[in-house]
Amino acid sequence: MSAQVNRQIRLAERPTGLPGDSTWKLTEEDVPVAGDGELLVSVEYLSLDPAMRGYLNDVPSYAPPVEVGAVMRAAGVGVVVESRNPAYAVGERVIGAFGVQEHAVSDGRGLSRVDTSVAPAPTWLGLLGYPGLTAYFGLFDVGRAQAGDTVVVSGAAGAVGSVVGQLAKVRGCRVVGIAGGAEKCAWLRDELGFDATIDYKSERVGRALHAAAPDGVDVYFDNVGGPVLDNVLAQLRRNARVVICGAISQYNRTEAAYGPKNYLSLIVNRASMAGMLVFDYVERFPEAIKELAGWYQEGKLISREQVVSGGVTEFPEALRMLFAGANTGKLVLEV
Amino acid sequence: MSAQVNRQIRLAERPTGLPGDSTWKLTEEDVPVAGDGELLVSVEYLSLDPAMRGYLNDVPSYAPPVEVGAVMRAAGVGVVVESRNPAYAVGERVIGAFGVQEHAVSDGRGLSRVDTSVAPAPTWLGLLGYPGLTAYFGLFDVGRAQAGDTVVVSGAAGAVGSVVGQLAKVRGCRVVGIAGGAEKCAWLRDELGFDATIDYKSERVGRALHAAAPDGVDVYFDNVGGPVLDNVLAQLRRNARVVICGAISQYNRTEAAYGPKNYLSLIVNRASMAGMLVFDYVERFPEAIKELAGWYQEGKLISREQVVSGGVTEFPEALRMLFAGANTGKLVLEV
Repeated sequence: MSAQVNRQIRLAERPTGLPGDSTWKLTEEDVPVAGDGELLVSVEYLSLDPAMRGYLNDVPSYAPPVEVGAVMRAAGVGVVVESRNPAYAVGERVIGAFGVQEHAVSDGRGLSRVDTSVAPAPTWLGLLGYPGLTAYFGLFDVGRAQAGDTVVVSGAAGAVGSVVGQLAKVRGCRVVGIAGGAEKCAWLRDELGFDATIDYKSERVGRALHAAAPDGVDVYFDNVGGPVLDNVLAQLRRNARVVICGAISQYNRTEAAYGPKNYLSLIVNRASMAGMLVFDYVERFPEAIKELAGWYQEGKLISREQVVSGGVTEFPEALRMLFAGANTGKLVLEV
Repeated sequence: MSAQVNRQIRLAERPTGLPGDSTWKLTEEDVPVAGDGELLVSVEYLSLDPAMRGYLNDVPSYAPPVEVGAVMRAAGVGVVVESRNPAYAVGERVIGAFGVQEHAVSDGRGLSRVDTSVAPAPTWLGLLGYPGLTAYFGLFDVGRAQAGDTVVVSGAAGAVGSVVGQLAKVRGCRVVGIAGGAEKCAWLRDELGFDATIDYKSERVGRALHAAAPDGVDVYFDNVGGPVLDNVLAQLRRNARVVICGAISQYNRTEAAYGPKNYLSLIVNRASMAGMLVFDYVERFPEAIKELAGWYQEGKLISREQVVSGGVTEFPEALRMLFAGANTGKLVLEV
């Protein structure tokens, strides 16, 4: 073992609004030892996820809150450096909920192998990980996107949104992406093949959407919530499907979330709005990963990760980048 | 013909907020004559519907707005007093979109027969009319209510809500009704067999719902919108279905509708919220009416109509009663 010390980021106190420096504390422990049936992972990359903000609130949700004092929850990719578990050999790369730390012990449950001959490790936290799977099941199962549909996605340059738009193109949809900034929008159009984009920072979303999707919206994949959701609700087509994947614009609010005032468009257009969580599809992950990896290898899907270096101590700042929309593609921390 | 004059209520000006006296004007015309292929109906009962408020706004919706100067749109039951249409004979009772007037000419399209041997005429505007059909398709098709589900309905003592709750009991659900006032609540429990009720005027809805449905809500049939919708959204169960039928609390607002701040509960609970319009099910109306009429004749469904007398001149006041929640059951105007 090269490292003697395991650096960890723990929750120091529950934040109000955007997590600040006082939210976190760095701790150092001895690198743990794998017990019987366990394996020790040296973490290489950690995933930064909007959902992390929810884990910090002491309210019931689909996952229990991270306790104050506990290592922050995070998915990561790492290499097995010690194994007393027959299912995993030293040197194998695995993905799992390792937490924001340099080393993690696992009993093997919830782990899966990462095949870096298919894609580099960070891609397994993006296109071939939860974000890609979220896009896949959200768009195809919940959103029931069909060829010819007009699909709109917000947070379009993010980890999930960038895959949603590309998958919609694979399916034969017309795709409009809503993102913040001209650079992101240019990337979506020029590299990912989106048909149109809306820069919510410089354009009026409602007006721009009317120009980009004059016949209305069949599927809206919402990652942001807030007024953008309202703008799209106002332009639904008959039988439209709104997939509520997230609401990154709302997660750091200190008051109640912004409620979509145009929800009665659901009646006028006989439309539906459904929430989704990728974890409900775990039995179908292998099938989906196989399909995503196939399209990736055929060049039909592009993966982009923005890798922040500097190790676990950079986690607080990387998380703020995420909520500031500073990333294009999947934001990953190199440990 | 006994009547020489046809009194009509026309839209005088588009209202802001609650329609007032200046919204309407009474006009008198000669009773029209049925042309070739037409029939003349003497209107007996008119339906008062929350959707009427929407027809007064000059905004695109599922139905075109009522034009200023036009006879107010309304469904009614009447008797054929003159017929040059072979499909209908003088003396038959029919239901159709006759408008707020004493006599109407029809070419027969959109009409259907009313069988008063099954139920009295006003019941064909309630339980066996659009409200009952809305409840039927909304609860069974959109809400997918199953035996054992906990079903919550707001506007529970209204035309649609009172049928929703009874249909849910027929299906074997546990039913909680939200209504305004102790009298309505007592009626729902004692006469209609609701398992529990919440008087939103005197109880805290969230707390009362937690007591009435401690394991949460599988189906919420929303007729009211506003904070009540938020209270129920906060108590959904996994895979809950929210049926957005209407939002009577919002229709007379002069600002934007109240957006449901707790909509992110759709993610946490993998729930869905869908709008519905009864007109989409027109091909299945006969099947549904047959089933509703059967349960009615077996005594499994009770119909209640509150009949306002006085003729078309009472229409403006009757409509205000509707928005004040003054009615229990279906509000009908006797012409």
